Amino acid sequence: MPLQTGGILTDTAKEALIEFGDGYSVCDFCLGSVCDMTKPPVREFARELLPEFLGCEVATLTYGARDGIFMVMHSLTQPGDSIIVDENRHYTTIVAAERVGLNVTEAPHSGYPEFRIDVNDYMPLIEKHNPKLILLTYPDGNHGNLTDAVRLGEIAQENGIPYVLNGAYAVGRMPVKMNDLGADFIIGSGHKSMASAGPCGVLGMKKKWKEIVLRKSKVYSNKEIELLGCTLRGVPLITLMASFPHVKERINHWDKQVVKAQWFSSELQKLGFKQLGEIPHRHDLLHFETPTLYDISKHVRERGYFLYEELKDRGIWGPQPGMTKAFKVSTFAADKDQLGFVVDSFKAILSKYS
Amino acid sequence: MPLQTGGILTDTAKEALIEFGDGYSVCDFCLGSVCDMTKPPVREFARELLPEFLGCEVATLTYGARDGIFMVMHSLTQPGDSIIVDENRHYTTIVAAERVGLNVTEAPHSGYPEFRIDVNDYMPLIEKHNPKLILLTYPDGNHGNLTDAVRLGEIAQENGIPYVLNGAYAVGRMPVKMNDLGADFIIGSGHKSMASAGPCGVLGMKKKWKEIVLRKSKVYSNKEIELLGCTLRGVPLITLMASFPHVKERINHWDKQVVKAQWFSSELQKLGFKQLGEIPHRHDLLHFETPTLYDISKHVRERGYFLYEELKDRGIWGPQPGMTKAFKVSTFAADKDQLGFVVDSFKAILSKYS
Repeated sequence: MPLQTGGILTDTAKEALIEFGDGYSVCDFCLGSVCDMTKPPVREFARELLPEFLGCEVATLTYGARDGIFMVMHSLTQPGDSIIVDENRHYTTIVAAERVGLNVTEAPHSGYPEFRIDVNDYMPLIEKHNPKLILLTYPDGNHGNLTDAVRLGEIAQENGIPYVLNGAYAVGRMPVKMNDLGADFIIGSGHKSMASAGPCGVLGMKKKWKEIVLRKSKVYSNKEIELLGCTLRGVPLITLMASFPHVKERINHWDKQVVKAQWFSSELQKLGFKQLGEIPHRHDLLHFETPTLYDISKHVRERGYFLYEELKDRGIWGPQPGMTKAFKVSTFAADKDQLGFVVDSFKAILSKYS
Repeated sequence: MPLQTGGILTDTAKEALIEFGDGYSVCDFCLGSVCDMTKPPVREFARELLPEFLGCEVATLTYGARDGIFMVMHSLTQPGDSIIVDENRHYTTIVAAERVGLNVTEAPHSGYPEFRIDVNDYMPLIEKHNPKLILLTYPDGNHGNLTDAVRLGEIAQENGIPYVLNGAYAVGRMPVKMNDLGADFIIGSGHKSMASAGPCGVLGMKKKWKEIVLRKSKVYSNKEIELLGCTLRGVPLITLMASFPHVKERINHWDKQVVKAQWFSSELQKLGFKQLGEIPHRHDLLHFETPTLYDISKHVRERGYFLYEELKDRGIWGPQPGMTKAFKVSTFAADKDQLGFVVDSFKAILSKYS
């Protein structure tokens, strides 16, 4: 699945996977609080390295981005409260809000073909709905649009509303710091973008939210209620930690990732494919409409399956069998030669059937 | 950590761990509902094999026992409601109830040294508190006591109260079927007792609870709200499935496990160790007081650390460094020869310092 390439394990993570595979192996060394464990060095990772990386004061581990979103909503809101989110939000934002019992209003995108979010559209909605928090998906998983998160931080601060940045496709791929964006919370995904086994995520926050989101049990004073006493444990945590030095380094090359994505997009556009989302594009997640491929599918015996077969014959896996109208792709893990091969393959397929 | 031996991976699970290590690899094959995936065969596992194994009508995957407990509480109760649990409950039962905002009353154990739960003690508490659900820990993780879960099923049914069995140390180790116990929910732990990588658990229920606990999103009709759209995914799920045939088979030899635990306990009792919990014992989780070792620690230079060092020299890992008063152990993964070596080692240590 080309969308998930940010979660491909590093070699170090693969070794750790074997070493810590057994059940609760991480917990063998735990004295009651996984984030305070020194061997393996979870404490240093969760208390120092991760907050620094996320640009926040306090960080914790989660099962994934959706679980971090739910934790924040469940801690800061009551059933019946309102929240504002962007229309490009991941479906789990809606489901997490339903689990809490919230009323969700969406700041609209600009529609086809760019689907841009104008964060100024949050302002009248804040006025009208008096939300308990606002959320921005940065970037969204459908089009890879990078909305003006800094401006939304200003709006949030002007209105005194907690601001959650869902960075599931940003944290671990590109430089992103919570403080620079004026957000209250930043959410990342280990399996999507931090070279970790799933399920695995991270949640960073301002210090002032610690007592609320990471509130402790009244009965067990070292256990955080919203984490059910333990955060993430076992294999995913270990792979997250093992991959972290590599992940921390790779975000420094983000400008090259953007150049690569833009080049790939321009090459596919020359073939009559239409890139959706922002142009010029600033993220490796890309969404293309492919009318030239769809036209072919109407005339060949295999219908839509011809594309899957043609790509498979060339060793390319990606679009779901039968689909020819559009596809999503990430250029993150592929180098320029590999992407060039994909471009050439599409060229060859188009000329074969033309 | 000797308590967690039920989570040691099978060889098949270790192979699967490598194959499906990368981030969201399981999701590469998902069309929107992980429990309906046919490749790998999650659908058959979650919809057929698992319910049959648990003796229930509907089953789903969770991040672990604690997450299953929270899901049930969060679905069936409102903040301020009462529930009754056994005093031997795991701490996560209390923390999950705090997360929902419940009032918890505990059916008391009999105290030192057996800590038995008499399920008839639930009756006056039900009368007094009108609980929305009752929970039994079967067995508890501290003493390995197997309370009369069948009688509690009768009490639950007589009073029309949903009954949750926390079988984190039962499911995958010993034969246990929800229907035979008259429970409404059964909870298991993959990393504790089903030879899986963590975090990973299972939740079984009567069909009548499906529409409540596994209620669907109003916006995304194939996404279960309480699971935030997806259940468990990635490596832990794959190891759970890979180990399942072995786990299903191993519970048939539970009688031998009990004989082994009882033999080990009787041998340690001959050394002056006192077994806590039920005697005769019916589970591999054992808790011993070791006054003879504690006496030694008072007279040696290394204090409590002498025991850790002596055991380490013999290749035995278990009790935490410094602890000599008591320890918990599981005999599940060790064979009789290995346990005999542990007994002989304790004998040698006692005679060396006597």
